[in-house]
Amino acid sequence: MDAVGSPRAVVRAWSGPAGVGLPTAGGRSPLTARGTPARGWATVESRVRLRPVPWSRVRVEDRFWSARQRTNRLQSLPHAHAQLAETGRLAAFALGWRPGQEPVPHYFWDSDVAKWVEAASYALATDPDPELGARLGEVVRAIVGAQQPDGYLNVYFSTVEPGAHWQDLRDAHELYCAGHLIEAAVAHHQATGERVLLDAACRLADHIGRVFGLGPGQIPGYSGHEEVELALVRLYRATGEERYLAQARYFVDQRGQSPNYFEVEAARRGTPGHAEGFMRSLRHPARHNQSHAPVRQQSEAVGHAVRAMYLYSAMTDLAVETGDEELAAACRRLFADVTGRHMYITGGVGSSAANEGFTEDWDLPNASAYAETCASVGLAFWAHRMLELEPRGEYGDVLERVLYNGVLAGVSADGTRFFYANPLASRGDVHRQEWFGCACCPPNAARIVASLGQYVYAAGPGTLAVHLYVQGQAEVDLDGQRVVIRQRTDYPWDGSVELTLEPEKPARFELLLRLPGWCRAPRLEVQGQTVDVGAVARDGYAWLDRTWRAGERVRLVLPMPPERIWAHPQVREDQGCAALQRGPLIFCLEEVDNPGIPLGRVSLVAGADIVAEWSADLLGGVVSLQTLGRVARGDDWGGALYRPAPPRAAGALLRAVPYFAWDNRAQGAMRVWLPEG
Amino acid sequence: MDAVGSPRAVVRAWSGPAGVGLPTAGGRSPLTARGTPARGWATVESRVRLRPVPWSRVRVEDRFWSARQRTNRLQSLPHAHAQLAETGRLAAFALGWRPGQEPVPHYFWDSDVAKWVEAASYALATDPDPELGARLGEVVRAIVGAQQPDGYLNVYFSTVEPGAHWQDLRDAHELYCAGHLIEAAVAHHQATGERVLLDAACRLADHIGRVFGLGPGQIPGYSGHEEVELALVRLYRATGEERYLAQARYFVDQRGQSPNYFEVEAARRGTPGHAEGFMRSLRHPARHNQSHAPVRQQSEAVGHAVRAMYLYSAMTDLAVETGDEELAAACRRLFADVTGRHMYITGGVGSSAANEGFTEDWDLPNASAYAETCASVGLAFWAHRMLELEPRGEYGDVLERVLYNGVLAGVSADGTRFFYANPLASRGDVHRQEWFGCACCPPNAARIVASLGQYVYAAGPGTLAVHLYVQGQAEVDLDGQRVVIRQRTDYPWDGSVELTLEPEKPARFELLLRLPGWCRAPRLEVQGQTVDVGAVARDGYAWLDRTWRAGERVRLVLPMPPERIWAHPQVREDQGCAALQRGPLIFCLEEVDNPGIPLGRVSLVAGADIVAEWSADLLGGVVSLQTLGRVARGDDWGGALYRPAPPRAAGALLRAVPYFAWDNRAQGAMRVWLPEG
Repeated sequence: MDAVGSPRAVVRAWSGPAGVGLPTAGGRSPLTARGTPARGWATVESRVRLRPVPWSRVRVEDRFWSARQRTNRLQSLPHAHAQLAETGRLAAFALGWRPGQEPVPHYFWDSDVAKWVEAASYALATDPDPELGARLGEVVRAIVGAQQPDGYLNVYFSTVEPGAHWQDLRDAHELYCAGHLIEAAVAHHQATGERVLLDAACRLADHIGRVFGLGPGQIPGYSGHEEVELALVRLYRATGEERYLAQARYFVDQRGQSPNYFEVEAARRGTPGHAEGFMRSLRHPARHNQSHAPVRQQSEAVGHAVRAMYLYSAMTDLAVETGDEELAAACRRLFADVTGRHMYITGGVGSSAANEGFTEDWDLPNASAYAETCASVGLAFWAHRMLELEPRGEYGDVLERVLYNGVLAGVSADGTRFFYANPLASRGDVHRQEWFGCACCPPNAARIVASLGQYVYAAGPGTLAVHLYVQGQAEVDLDGQRVVIRQRTDYPWDGSVELTLEPEKPARFELLLRLPGWCRAPRLEVQGQTVDVGAVARDGYAWLDRTWRAGERVRLVLPMPPERIWAHPQVREDQGCAALQRGPLIFCLEEVDNPGIPLGRVSLVAGADIVAEWSADLLGGVVSLQTLGRVARGDDWGGALYRPAPPRAAGALLRAVPYFAWDNRAQGAMRVWLPEG
Repeated sequence: MDAVGSPRAVVRAWSGPAGVGLPTAGGRSPLTARGTPARGWATVESRVRLRPVPWSRVRVEDRFWSARQRTNRLQSLPHAHAQLAETGRLAAFALGWRPGQEPVPHYFWDSDVAKWVEAASYALATDPDPELGARLGEVVRAIVGAQQPDGYLNVYFSTVEPGAHWQDLRDAHELYCAGHLIEAAVAHHQATGERVLLDAACRLADHIGRVFGLGPGQIPGYSGHEEVELALVRLYRATGEERYLAQARYFVDQRGQSPNYFEVEAARRGTPGHAEGFMRSLRHPARHNQSHAPVRQQSEAVGHAVRAMYLYSAMTDLAVETGDEELAAACRRLFADVTGRHMYITGGVGSSAANEGFTEDWDLPNASAYAETCASVGLAFWAHRMLELEPRGEYGDVLERVLYNGVLAGVSADGTRFFYANPLASRGDVHRQEWFGCACCPPNAARIVASLGQYVYAAGPGTLAVHLYVQGQAEVDLDGQRVVIRQRTDYPWDGSVELTLEPEKPARFELLLRLPGWCRAPRLEVQGQTVDVGAVARDGYAWLDRTWRAGERVRLVLPMPPERIWAHPQVREDQGCAALQRGPLIFCLEEVDNPGIPLGRVSLVAGADIVAEWSADLLGGVVSLQTLGRVARGDDWGGALYRPAPPRAAGALLRAVPYFAWDNRAQGAMRVWLPEG
């Protein structure tokens, strides 16, 4: 076997680009700029750093995902556009609102539109769609038209409260909206090559740079809802302008310094914040927006989950860009805390509706799970960024878990109905809605589905990594040459993956294949020869060091027998219960598949076989699971509510479907965790 | 065996008095008056009707209850008096409040004071206490002094909103306060023989009678918070004045008629009700106060639990007084619904804090259980009244369950701290408080403890019933002669009960002994001779028909082995779980008794012995239970939150204490329901 051996410890001071060929910013490749650590900042030698192969270089041709991308483009995006129009969000950019008019623009409206622009840009770039393109152009023109001469851009604070810029950073989402606009602008530029929105975003970012900071006359504040931080890193990466990276770092590091800026701000303003009542209802308001301590000192996930995910993503971005090990260490601590004590088996985070966020350790109620779709999207963002810090299977596993379960559940099969909260049990009264007054989730799901390609591969010097198994191909610039990598797979329904490598000329590099944590016995062949997985596995990836020639094949087989999964015993809501899993998918029982079986009375029979079956006519084609269960009988109880003997049980054949697919048929009860014994 | 045989079907048209000797109202025995069904109302022949032997004829000399009555008198009542004084509730009766002053009297303050008067009256009558007597006299004088010339009596509506009498019946608790004042007056009169408060209550009731009704110029309304209905029946019984019974019947039957009075009232008033925001938050506001349908048509417990309990109690009183079978049928339906689908194993009812009330069938969450102490008190009232309708064990069982568990848990061992909500599981953050802004619960618990004697015995022609097993004695007037009945027992710790009967002369009557539903094998001896319990048992009572001679003894042995109890499988919060019970007591695990054992990870071992042990030094002396449990171990999980193998378990000896006694020592977690298997 040629050069496929045990993994090497790769310790290199590298931070160069992984992909090129994007539309350039000012004639310079937008990606080369990010190679240089910002001057004057502490950096450390770091392990191999892999940068995502951008969505624009990845073609998704996957039974599972391509269908979802198509639905996203043909249904979700037009649906969302119609909703944005109907609710007045688009028209609001004309800044024509006058006192007394209805509807009154809301201070987070801009972000809903910006996320739609971002998602539409991705969708258009991979699948030309003139109608969508025309709509996108109109929306972009409307946004740009709302920019003030000084670069400021915000509908609400240009119309409803024009005199109140930057006075309620805690509640009013002004920098949050700016962040989403910047992200949209970068995506729009990369997708279309147009600069109009990117230039507007730069003017906005420059305005923000003048307003915020520790210099004389600047506001020493930061956003109550994080987002602008990661957006500024994206803008830096797209433009090469280091001031945006510096601004992101300022926002991240200023957060939580004493005195707490939000208290200073409130005292100076003297009037209630836009969410004063809610904030006063919290025991620890500063924890809600993670400003209770400097971020480098944080170790516990607290507060609003989406805010936290966006902050941690930005922290990881900065650690990646600057090699800041202190920040990286905080990210690792926080990731361990979130995923080890606060994450649903679906990848959902933020268990409580009361604060849309984190509660105490291990507090993961099922029926009342909040697990906001946006928080799942945010966790996917963050886990993906952690993979840039270091390729560890635990990050890839979380990315996969939340993508295939928590994120996908947020959107109906037809793409036009959405969950905001994603419970893991329902008595039948939980259903997706067409839209929300606070419409953050639908376009957030749309942008992650549309840009799925960027989550699949990553590359660095001498290294090409596969994080997700998605059929299609990518073009990767690796050590100066172009390598095409193709995948053939029917993941997540089947665990066989065939990879073909097409370097322009033979090239030695390490191919990293994620070994999913759910798979107990992965098998690996290179050019038909079996590889000892144990020998090449490190930190959840198989490291295949070899001189690769065009057409060489790697076959990864990930057996995915259905399994019972248990939660850590500290999770008291799941005590004595198991969930059904197959591969990356978590399953649930739905009433519609189990007619006449009251789901509240079902338990799993210990040791019973679980049979997986491809059902082409079910939910557009899914693998469903069948297993033997017990149903507690109530027919011999008379009117009694309590008695000194357990309920008698009857056997029942239970059928489970993937969690992401629930609530797409007749309404009814649903349950993920089931007593087992 | 002499005349102890199988039960007879007793069908008599009887509704005479069960006890006499109370202070008389207007020279007439207050109890003889209630014998006559109100004229013109439909009555039916009914089964034997037993009237409670009043608290004034019962001496409680019981290890368990006498200690609680002493604590109630020496600690709870002085504590409550101090709180009533400190918070301004007592001073408010001087009607000196002027706009701008703090505190502003609240519209339910009167009821807190009235319940204290009622409880103090009971306590004084059974145990002379000059200090308490002096305080009681002062409070009574203050109350009477607040009465208006027309009989109206309400602090809030005589000071804060003097022009707004009877305009917000839905929210403002005006008739509710009046009801408690009437109850207090009856108790005060019966305890002291004084008429001053009773006369005031009659003037108030007469005022209410003039104001409310379907006549010209009258308000066709009723109270949003029931209470006055049952109070008017008590006033009728104490005074013999049928108009009070008629007024109660008007209030009960007018409730829920179309159009809904509260809508009429709101439209006429044109301003928000005192609880407008809350009422608007409810999906079915009329269900909150049980005005969604005429009461005779109701079959499902809905809305605010305390309101419901007081309404159902009044309905039962009216059915008893008038022989109204339609009303009785509604009471039976509602009782079956409450106790068969909505009652915690502790007897708590009203599972949701959101409405302080009933939710859907079988919805009995443990950690978030509301189970207000007042609702437990109300359920005890109602179950006791159902026993007047017919002596059925199911009513007595509920009375016993809620008294020994749900009610007693509401008060700390030292009598000075109180639960408003009574969860069945806690992570350690739930503790009794010294007082509440809405202080309904402490004096409600005080009045039921102080008047416990009245729940023990009942009598009717040829019939003497024992509902509860409490050491002490009662003097009963039975078929014209005085019968003394004595109990010796160490209930609820031990199930042996020795009864001695002392009729003045030999008398044939049926002695009814409740056979608790929790007891599987009761044994019975009359004068040392075994009685076949199966042969004399009917509807949960042993019917012992015999000519009783002075000094004759009955021995009832109720073996109380510790048992596991299961909930109906429809109760999904208890799926797979069992609770520990011994006799009438429900047990719980407290952290303080199980050091180092995380209660969230504990399960019961199926089939393991449960050992009961008297522990004199524990909680002032209780029986505790010990059994083998399993504790799921987390030490082999690393940082994982989920894994494909169940937690390993370690054995642990668990100790459980009676639920009523929890949260009297070091703070910590508590749990009633435990997985079993």
